[in-house]
Amino acid sequence: MSLVARQMADSHPGSRPAFDDALIKCIEECAACFQACAACADACMAEPDVVSLIKCIRTDLDCSDVCATTTSILSRRAVVDVTVTRAAVEACLASCVACAEECELHAARHEHCRICAEVCRRCEEACRQLLQRL
Amino acid sequence: MSLVARQMADSHPGSRPAFDDALIKCIEECAACFQACAACADACMAEPDVVSLIKCIRTDLDCSDVCATTTSILSRRAVVDVTVTRAAVEACLASCVACAEECELHAARHEHCRICAEVCRRCEEACRQLLQRL
Amino acid sequence: MSLVARQMADSHPGSRPAFDDALIKCIEECAACFQACAACADACMAEPDVVSLIKCIRTDLDCSDVCATTTSILSRRAVVDVTVTRAAVEACLASCVACAEECELHAARHEHCRICAEVCRRCEEACRQLLQRL
Amino acid sequence: MSLVARQMADSHPGSRPAFDDALIKCIEECAACFQACAACADACMAEPDVVSLIKCIRTDLDCSDVCATTTSILSRRAVVDVTVTRAAVEACLASCVACAEECELHAARHEHCRICAEVCRRCEEACRQLLQRL
Repeated sequence: MSLVARQMADSHPGSRPAFDDALIKCIEECAACFQACAACADACMAEPDVVSLIKCIRTDLDCSDVCATTTSILSRRAVVDVTVTRAAVEACLASCVACAEECELHAARHEHCRICAEVCRRCEEACRQLLQRL
Repeated sequence: MSLVARQMADSHPGSRPAFDDALIKCIEECAACFQACAACADACMAEPDVVSLIKCIRTDLDCSDVCATTTSILSRRAVVDVTVTRAAVEACLASCVACAEECELHAARHEHCRICAEVCRRCEEACRQLLQRL
Repeated sequence: MSLVARQMADSHPGSRPAFDDALIKCIEECAACFQACAACADACMAEPDVVSLIKCIRTDLDCSDVCATTTSILSRRAVVDVTVTRAAVEACLASCVACAEECELHAARHEHCRICAEVCRRCEEACRQLLQRL
Repeated sequence: MSLVARQMADSHPGSRPAFDDALIKCIEECAACFQACAACADACMAEPDVVSLIKCIRTDLDCSDVCATTTSILSRRAVVDVTVTRAAVEACLASCVACAEECELHAARHEHCRICAEVCRRCEEACRQLLQRL
């Protein structure tokens, strides 16, 4: 599968400059992170050591929700309201950092945490890149 | 109807101190704002002067999404991750201010914008109060 | 706090007949259920017997997500697309039933499950009433 | 970018059989459709003929919300609750059909509607394939 964020951006009237590479990259990473965190939370709930993964489940759920909303907001950037966009991307960055740090603690034992941490770090980087351009 | 945020908070094991009045108030206002902004966006789309309301629809949609996510995150505060919570509430505050300012421009002509602006201002204030306690 | 679903409906141009009592009641119950299920999931994660509550956490999370989306869809009913609305409300009803049944199993031990089950049952009933009118 | 739905599924303990190809395909298409519909709604709002696209914006927004929730629910399928999953996927299918039909009316004039309709049709097909296996 592939997201069509690029094609959707190219076909948006009058707003192409706003949909630059950093924006599209961030949309893609947010969408991937939204799904990965939801899946990691559920995988954690299926582990025998679920009790030691409760904080991880919570950071996964927070990060999943924030990434979904950031995907929507960034997909709606014909008129950029820089204040709202910046605050949303900063919240996304904060939740990606928190989730990556927590998942990394469990990465050696749980492959889903290792993968999820990687996706969070990629999303964190995409948020940083976008913030530099806002 | 009434939200049961208070009852849910009182029945949460071990985390009652975190669910103080400012948190519950903010959850309630975010939930109300999530719904009001979704309804205002749709009402704007039904107005004869929809063309002049496009920016309002966008700020409504952003604010609705951010308030829904903030409702979820604040409902999940057994273990407070202050950095994530703070960033999420700051994003919520920013989107409430942007949406209130835009809706206020149309409040004289459109009752739904007037009501929505009021709800956004209440949510903004609840976010400010909560941020002082985080 | 109070949702302003009624005021938003009354101020919506040209679509008042669609926003009848059953619709507004369903919006209100969906919004309450969205929050209650998110809070119950987190409260379950804070319980000493979390291992026996994993299924409950999952049904809570599903129900919370479905109720949030149903709140948005029902708030957007200026032009009723009966097929989509009906399918969404039926999915909401199914997730409320599943969540209520699971929470009721734990209601004697956990007050948050007892409250959450009640909210789910009220939302279930509101969905049934609305489906009769679609 | 690429979703990591496959890797997340392969690393989920004890639930690999549930994460078959039809499920992963449906998760991927739902995530893509969630983003494409959000972007199409915004692109429609930027068009000179926005007045003729109001219904399209509404079906886009409904479909985006339903696809996001379906992505989350399908990512949480360690324990399959067939009733809830089936109802959610049926709601997703209904909203994809409605959105595709509406976008197809505007596909000749608007590239974003053409692309969005294609994504909706792929998601519709993925929902159908998954429903046959539930």
